[in-house]
Amino acid sequence: MPNGAQALMKTLADAGIEVCFTNPGTSEMHFVAALDDEPRMRAVLALFEGVATGAADGYARMAGKPAATLLHLGCGLGNGLANLHNARKGKVPVLNIVGDHATHHAPLDAQLQSDIETVARNVSPGFVRTSLRTDRLCRDAVDAITAARGLPGQVATLILPADVSWGEGGVPEPPPPPPTPAAADAATVAAVADVLRSGGRTALLLGGQALREPALLAAAKLAAHCDVRLLAEVFPTRLERGAGLPAVERIAYLAELASVQLAEFDHLVLVDAKSPVSFFAYPGKPSQLVPAGCTVHTFAAASEDAVASLEALVAALDADSATPLLAAPSRPGRPRGRLTAAKVCKALGHRLPERAILIDEAITSGLTLPMLTAGAPRHDLITLTGGAIGQALPNAIGAAIACPDRPVIALVGDGSAMYTIQSLWTMAREQLDVTTIVFNNARYSVLNVELERVGAERIGPKARAQLDLDGPRLDFCRLAQGQGVHAVRADSAEAFLKALDYALAQPGPHLIEAVVPEALGGAKRRILPWLLRALPQLPKPLALALKRRLAP
Amino acid sequence: MPNGAQALMKTLADAGIEVCFTNPGTSEMHFVAALDDEPRMRAVLALFEGVATGAADGYARMAGKPAATLLHLGCGLGNGLANLHNARKGKVPVLNIVGDHATHHAPLDAQLQSDIETVARNVSPGFVRTSLRTDRLCRDAVDAITAARGLPGQVATLILPADVSWGEGGVPEPPPPPPTPAAADAATVAAVADVLRSGGRTALLLGGQALREPALLAAAKLAAHCDVRLLAEVFPTRLERGAGLPAVERIAYLAELASVQLAEFDHLVLVDAKSPVSFFAYPGKPSQLVPAGCTVHTFAAASEDAVASLEALVAALDADSATPLLAAPSRPGRPRGRLTAAKVCKALGHRLPERAILIDEAITSGLTLPMLTAGAPRHDLITLTGGAIGQALPNAIGAAIACPDRPVIALVGDGSAMYTIQSLWTMAREQLDVTTIVFNNARYSVLNVELERVGAERIGPKARAQLDLDGPRLDFCRLAQGQGVHAVRADSAEAFLKALDYALAQPGPHLIEAVVPEALGGAKRRILPWLLRALPQLPKPLALALKRRLAP
Repeated sequence: MPNGAQALMKTLADAGIEVCFTNPGTSEMHFVAALDDEPRMRAVLALFEGVATGAADGYARMAGKPAATLLHLGCGLGNGLANLHNARKGKVPVLNIVGDHATHHAPLDAQLQSDIETVARNVSPGFVRTSLRTDRLCRDAVDAITAARGLPGQVATLILPADVSWGEGGVPEPPPPPPTPAAADAATVAAVADVLRSGGRTALLLGGQALREPALLAAAKLAAHCDVRLLAEVFPTRLERGAGLPAVERIAYLAELASVQLAEFDHLVLVDAKSPVSFFAYPGKPSQLVPAGCTVHTFAAASEDAVASLEALVAALDADSATPLLAAPSRPGRPRGRLTAAKVCKALGHRLPERAILIDEAITSGLTLPMLTAGAPRHDLITLTGGAIGQALPNAIGAAIACPDRPVIALVGDGSAMYTIQSLWTMAREQLDVTTIVFNNARYSVLNVELERVGAERIGPKARAQLDLDGPRLDFCRLAQGQGVHAVRADSAEAFLKALDYALAQPGPHLIEAVVPEALGGAKRRILPWLLRALPQLPKPLALALKRRLAP
Repeated sequence: MPNGAQALMKTLADAGIEVCFTNPGTSEMHFVAALDDEPRMRAVLALFEGVATGAADGYARMAGKPAATLLHLGCGLGNGLANLHNARKGKVPVLNIVGDHATHHAPLDAQLQSDIETVARNVSPGFVRTSLRTDRLCRDAVDAITAARGLPGQVATLILPADVSWGEGGVPEPPPPPPTPAAADAATVAAVADVLRSGGRTALLLGGQALREPALLAAAKLAAHCDVRLLAEVFPTRLERGAGLPAVERIAYLAELASVQLAEFDHLVLVDAKSPVSFFAYPGKPSQLVPAGCTVHTFAAASEDAVASLEALVAALDADSATPLLAAPSRPGRPRGRLTAAKVCKALGHRLPERAILIDEAITSGLTLPMLTAGAPRHDLITLTGGAIGQALPNAIGAAIACPDRPVIALVGDGSAMYTIQSLWTMAREQLDVTTIVFNNARYSVLNVELERVGAERIGPKARAQLDLDGPRLDFCRLAQGQGVHAVRADSAEAFLKALDYALAQPGPHLIEAVVPEALGGAKRRILPWLLRALPQLPKPLALALKRRLAP
């Protein structure tokens, strides 16, 4: 008869959980030993738990099913919390297995004893359970898997005491049935169909599952048939885009831009998306971005089948024969001269390989990347769903393991990269085809913008130093080489293109340190002049609307 | 009238909180802006929250008063959790200031919204409060400071919504009075005096405050007068030791050794220490390390004044004129030849400068370092109180800022170093006199031991790979240089000594990568043969007792 860990391993594999991102300690040693009993389970070691959890997030976004994490008590879970937060906000299924002291050891308050469940509730509000008996462990695991891969997907946390793991008498369980979500009900379909027929200026705001190809095609038929606009939530979990797919305009990160984008609409129809709010609050500014006079309609909730809901709406409106507008193939020209963030994006648009997975956590690139890659070959875009920086590099690990035949490109700021810089080692160990592009501007650039936006008027040298990554300047090439990853620095567009070509052609991980000027530059970092300067890089309708609002 | 953040900054400085370890985001921008209003406040930027929290821990251990941390919502607190756990277990005062969304923004469930309080309870069970009004913010802060610096010291978490921070009408508060802990009561003193007079074999187990010089001297008088032994808890928060101070024998990390150490006693008297338990549970082995037949007496609880309690006991036993046994000055000779962990410890004993602060997180060095530095000039030893690895480098930052005139030496394993490797950047930015020694054996070496100890018999290649940091081998010199820290690799004792001399002589941070063979070496990593081989390096009484127990 298997021990708890062995039975658990079989139960996981039977349920299709075939990858475990690990950072184990002593209390997880029986789970570690059981890895060799289950040939279907791949274990990927991370040197920091935030790498393991972010990798599980990236894996699930691309594989469409959860991976497991293996974490060491409350402290290991704490280290993994930020990227689990990103998974939770992105409705991504993840199964955490958090080792704990043996049940008889816990009351002794040994050094590593802490209340794991309280930490777990932050990211796993829907499922936290400490498994207390070896013979019930696999049933607990199946409940956790069911919770994780329900609709919406969620982070489920199973706490595994060491004695439950090493105890004899584990009983493997058959896999849980797949979830069977319902579509929006007929009354909701009819009501939203009326909105779309009404002639009012209407946008569909697509999020979650509604940003994958089947939903996008249905939405694009509605857009063509009813003259409605397609918007995407600001930070998509996974957006399928590029030539041949319907184009959607993402809500801007900056509330100043987003409110311009939304100003024209009488109706906003939410499809697996939330009503848009600003990322942070700002003194004297509204947090709700939907203009007064615009009615918000929830069409498909996160627990509903968004594709089936959209297809029902297509049928109700007789829009099936409408021709969806698809992005035409187009690539920007080759950038030249001194490197800037916009030129990095242009180079990516110029060269993006077929079926790339693009992971964008770089605020530096946020404004221009979507436009410059809109007509590139179809690709997937993964973004920072929960706002907890340090997501891109771990996500890239998971995406590369889920899709070993696809190139993965991660874009990340210098500040963000440092939170989970240990990711590079795992990329090297697993020889993953990941190209990491670090924008090195020696700043928490976004915070220089934010310091203005929150209205902190007097900015002294101590405050400024909190946003400044100079002195010493980080050398990402050495940080990569120190972990076994090939790395090159580029400060011209030509050098960047050469490095990108090399990275995409050679197997294994590569890092390109893109040395770029600070996003806002100069001593006066006012946001309005900066937005005005950014206008030429924005989609034309947005740029025009902005110009009307902002020009002096 | 100041805004909330400005009033808070003055309140902190008035209460003697003069250092803030920061990793801020937008919601903390008003606190950041207020830094320049308070010349007494030093802000030290970290690139990862675990660095900030570990630095606050190290600072408080050496300064004897709390620093503040500045963290960004629930995810920032999560990233800082592991080192806050170490502080909590070490009874170290820390004041967390965790920025949150504005109170009106929180219900909108924006990207970074999460339940901060649930995370905070893991490390701040005694004080978590969200401050909801600007005019009461400073009163909340004073309550938090009072909680943090009480006896025992604790981690207090003050959650600061952005609008409470930016709101007008902050009211600075005067500092709270210092805590006035009581000594053990007369009956307890009398009872323990009877135990010490009884003639039974007795040990005083010293922990917490009882490992500082005044308590050690009182305890050493008792030891001399009553023929009792002095033991120290396994992981001291701060142990003052070296030539001229009483020597205490630390309880061993390995339960196998600890139970031998404790076997001879009829009475164990706890002085600000807990009854010893094994670090982890192991199948079929007891977690309680106190032998049957040994009576445990709690003398000074963590909330009591340990020094006053010990001095009352000295008085009750009329031991004041006893001559405490003090460690004689002695240094080991110069190590030679191929580098090993033991030779690194020998080199440290050979060279340890006056008033060094030694931070030891390296299990690799754990057995031999105490003996080889026992007669070195007096120094402070800081250890891994909560077992959450990644403590030493951040602790070194805090210790160096608390004691700028003292050399700080941090010893850390390769695996441990990677959790908070971003510490090196802060060391470089602040030009701290820290020498970091990384034992690079390309292993989670302790886990190779643990895999044996938990009785996982069949160890396959996948399991073994989870403990193995080879492929690629980490290059800590490049990791340091990439963050602006001077670094040297040493694989001989001669090279190590040269690097150590250079690091101690030159200002600013240095890293020495000590390339050492794996602690257990070879294919068969059985613990008993290893312990037998370690015998010559152990204190003689312990080695003899072990030999009796273990020898085949």
